[in-house]
Amino acid sequence: MQIEFLGTGAGSPGKFRNVSSLALRLLDEINSVWLFDVGEGTQHQILRTTIRPRKIDKIFISHLHGDHIFGLPGLLSSRSFQGGNGPLDIYGPRGVKEYVNVSLRTSESRLAYKLRFHELTKQTDGLIFEDDKFSVYAAPLDHRILSFGYRVVEHDHPGELMVDKLAQLHIPSGPVYGKLKRGEVVTLEDGRTIDGRQMIGPAQPGRIVTIIGDTRKTANTLKLAENADVLVHESTFGKGESKLAKNYYHSTNVQAAQIAKKANVKKLLLNHISARYTGKLVYDLEKQARTVFPNTKVVKDFDMIDVPFQKG
Amino acid sequence: MQIEFLGTGAGSPGKFRNVSSLALRLLDEINSVWLFDVGEGTQHQILRTTIRPRKIDKIFISHLHGDHIFGLPGLLSSRSFQGGNGPLDIYGPRGVKEYVNVSLRTSESRLAYKLRFHELTKQTDGLIFEDDKFSVYAAPLDHRILSFGYRVVEHDHPGELMVDKLAQLHIPSGPVYGKLKRGEVVTLEDGRTIDGRQMIGPAQPGRIVTIIGDTRKTANTLKLAENADVLVHESTFGKGESKLAKNYYHSTNVQAAQIAKKANVKKLLLNHISARYTGKLVYDLEKQARTVFPNTKVVKDFDMIDVPFQKG
Ligand SMILES: [Zn+2]
Ligand SMILES: [Zn+2]
Repeated sequence: MQIEFLGTGAGSPGKFRNVSSLALRLLDEINSVWLFDVGEGTQHQILRTTIRPRKIDKIFISHLHGDHIFGLPGLLSSRSFQGGNGPLDIYGPRGVKEYVNVSLRTSESRLAYKLRFHELTKQTDGLIFEDDKFSVYAAPLDHRILSFGYRVVEHDHPGELMVDKLAQLHIPSGPVYGKLKRGEVVTLEDGRTIDGRQMIGPAQPGRIVTIIGDTRKTANTLKLAENADVLVHESTFGKGESKLAKNYYHSTNVQAAQIAKKANVKKLLLNHISARYTGKLVYDLEKQARTVFPNTKVVKDFDMIDVPFQKG
Repeated sequence: MQIEFLGTGAGSPGKFRNVSSLALRLLDEINSVWLFDVGEGTQHQILRTTIRPRKIDKIFISHLHGDHIFGLPGLLSSRSFQGGNGPLDIYGPRGVKEYVNVSLRTSESRLAYKLRFHELTKQTDGLIFEDDKFSVYAAPLDHRILSFGYRVVEHDHPGELMVDKLAQLHIPSGPVYGKLKRGEVVTLEDGRTIDGRQMIGPAQPGRIVTIIGDTRKTANTLKLAENADVLVHESTFGKGESKLAKNYYHSTNVQAAQIAKKANVKKLLLNHISARYTGKLVYDLEKQARTVFPNTKVVKDFDMIDVPFQKG
């Protein structure tokens, strides 16, 4: 599991940062890539990575401002053109479906795969997706228009069956192993009773990644970020600009760090960086945030951040 | 007057060619830039040129395929963000207005300037714009969807009043000069009659640029291209692929060259080059076309081609 940043700028594309998009690379886990926001030029950025568009099977949109969605129709078309034929799910605020459908209809783009829309409303607050490996939660943030934060939770990996221990106890292999692995209590042919739960190693806690799009400081961010391994948070303004941030419905680097600390996350990644910040000023953004939350990094386009398992 | 190519590729963006867009730079003539097609990432390409988005006051769309329009909403938004406040005219096939309006409405983009749409239909054939300096003509081509070629005609510059000759004839300066310049016949106070038309130098013929978007070989191209100084023509396929070109509603390099020759243009620029053509193959495309029409060039992104006046 890695997070690859495709666009880390704010508002409009600049020479050094594209508009918003990031890829949650789940290739080792489920052979998929999930995108969060698709600003204009995201497909161009992807050309410079190892991501194959056909692997993208979920897209989560934080909000409908142009710098977060104007790359969507082009990406969807190119995915088809490049042989993608598996279904693709799009999660995002109400309106994303009409925008995509009008764009595809106007351009007479026929996709070789099924698009499934999951529109979110201001009532949305909680689980929006679940399978046997992952759950995704969404909650509204506080932006000029409806904007969502997402929390991706990997399910815990159950502990391994301790085959060495079973061998020591001279328990013969066979269907009984499956029952023990599922934690059942088993009576062997020789009369012994074995509790499966004692034959299983410790579970490996799943990882949690929280991605917070454009927003003011708000309680829902804290809820979504709780105990996350990685929190990606917007940082449109710098220290001392909280008034500006509030007026423009954005956050400062220090506000993001305060949330990271309070939510007990392990790592904070700051993105949505204004083009005003270059060189030393970026370094300062990071330094200011680190006084509140030391494990902070201001990311740039094409940064690839690993999300490791925590020691159990 | 120059043509600056912003995207010279076909279909989807590649590493070396972006999707379609070109700028007709009329800065010396009318302090404006006109865009022809706006594929995704056009605003990113513009960042790498000296073009200021606020100078763009007309956009002509050949057809509504995604590789020709998906950069439009982003460009329009950024133009506003970067201080553009003069009105902007968009010419293109019916449907462009709904696409732009839904994109801007979905993203809650408020433009600081007036957008004026001029939608073209399959009945459109002839003059679509005229002011004191330029006329623009459009005619339908032959593509999978309605596609237009454009002919931009600069009006002739009237000849200069030959003041040396007037001085030789001892004609005193004054309001009479204005009348002579307009070609009127004037009777002087001393009784002489002077024909203004004989006091004016030769007119400077205006320049003609024809831009042909995606199309099969078709008669309307010939009509639009007649005697043009520069013909920009798509060249999706190479020599020997005219069957493929027909099936996909495109043209070959050789077909474009045949039209250039027949239409008596002065220079042919080939664009809309498939990503299959790289290195030596691009050179071959050019070479094949030159056997039919010698003054041919296969353009690449950021090529800037001057359109000089012809000697009168
Ligand atoms: Zn934004
Ligand atoms: Zn095309």
